[in-house]
Amino acid sequence: MLTLHYAPDNASLIVRLALLELGVPFATTLVDRRARQHKSAAYRALNPAGLIPVLETPEGPVSETAAVLLWLVDRYGALGPHVGEAGRGAFLKWLFFTSNTLHADLRMVFYPGQYAPGAEAALHAGITARLQQHYALLDALCGTVPWFGGAEPSVLDLYAAATLRWATLYAPGGAWFSLADCPNLRAMVARLETRASVATASSAEGLGPHPFTDPQPCRPPEGSAT
Amino acid sequence: MLTLHYAPDNASLIVRLALLELGVPFATTLVDRRARQHKSAAYRALNPAGLIPVLETPEGPVSETAAVLLWLVDRYGALGPHVGEAGRGAFLKWLFFTSNTLHADLRMVFYPGQYAPGAEAALHAGITARLQQHYALLDALCGTVPWFGGAEPSVLDLYAAATLRWATLYAPGGAWFSLADCPNLRAMVARLETRASVATASSAEGLGPHPFTDPQPCRPPEGSAT
Repeated sequence: MLTLHYAPDNASLIVRLALLELGVPFATTLVDRRARQHKSAAYRALNPAGLIPVLETPEGPVSETAAVLLWLVDRYGALGPHVGEAGRGAFLKWLFFTSNTLHADLRMVFYPGQYAPGAEAALHAGITARLQQHYALLDALCGTVPWFGGAEPSVLDLYAAATLRWATLYAPGGAWFSLADCPNLRAMVARLETRASVATASSAEGLGPHPFTDPQPCRPPEGSAT
Repeated sequence: MLTLHYAPDNASLIVRLALLELGVPFATTLVDRRARQHKSAAYRALNPAGLIPVLETPEGPVSETAAVLLWLVDRYGALGPHVGEAGRGAFLKWLFFTSNTLHADLRMVFYPGQYAPGAEAALHAGITARLQQHYALLDALCGTVPWFGGAEPSVLDLYAAATLRWATLYAPGGAWFSLADCPNLRAMVARLETRASVATASSAEGLGPHPFTDPQPCRPPEGSAT
């Protein structure tokens, strides 16, 4: 059995979407962020870094969003190229890029005080300029390969889609990011919004009818995003 | 045939070490950083992000250090757990952590102006405090699993070792980091320094006799680190 430790509209959303797309049974356990449960000793026994998500698997807990996604791809042989398949290397490249550059930078927009206390505005300016470049790279890639913006979603689609949701929410009025400037990514997430996985996840985490093309702050039935 | 696009003492060093440990033949192509060759159109055709390294493979160019490492693990069935092997999920977790947290943060110590222009000192203070926590987590893990600090090196050993070299060089006099505070990591890199792969890489990139336990600025036979 798989158990996803999640908080609404956190990175665990990406893993939930992947599990729903795979159609495998899983349980969820809410992590109470308001009580800082992810920093507790019990949670750190699952993930010493104290970050969400963790997926409990038959071989033990797996954390780091992209590691969980790749573990699922390899375990179930879906949602991305398998080992030895054409494009695996390029897929890995963009999965790591999304994790170590796009997601890492986006995290600094959410929590600038964890990185540059006292200089949040300068960090925001530098990072948002970088993020514009990252999304330009992803928009140029999207739709040119079967595992990103292709006919069937991949974990990279799901990962990028969630970051686009958050970027839009964190760029009020398109201040530094607007999905309209990324037409290929916009088409990809619009297709995603027609899928049952997105409706199910959106309902579970209170994301509304258009979580990617018209994101609104989440109103979850349980727990809180921060 | 494999061709590694490298610059001395850059992240390409980690891929070089992995290739040497695998014992597979490979060619190298120097990237002239002084001429900003990694930002050229020709190089961006290999890696649109304009970063070093790229490994040219029979299935096309692969970039992002950790993606290349994982591609090598999967292609050659060595230097880390393969798909389905016990520990694969945990190994992926720490490989992504090293890439998206440790390496990403270290990069901000090297190039603070790319992230928080005008507020480099505040960013340095915040990031170096984070890096101390990251190394504490890795030191606690090191030696407790076969694929990190075990009898035979893994790509995670090689990756961590290179970051330790750079952290020491960027923390003059142990200002914010000292390898002595991480005894398990220190033992791991001391063992690495007895291996032929390290001697060969050190000679090729001018890293001196103790590139991890007593790192000195590189004096490469060709090219430059910055």
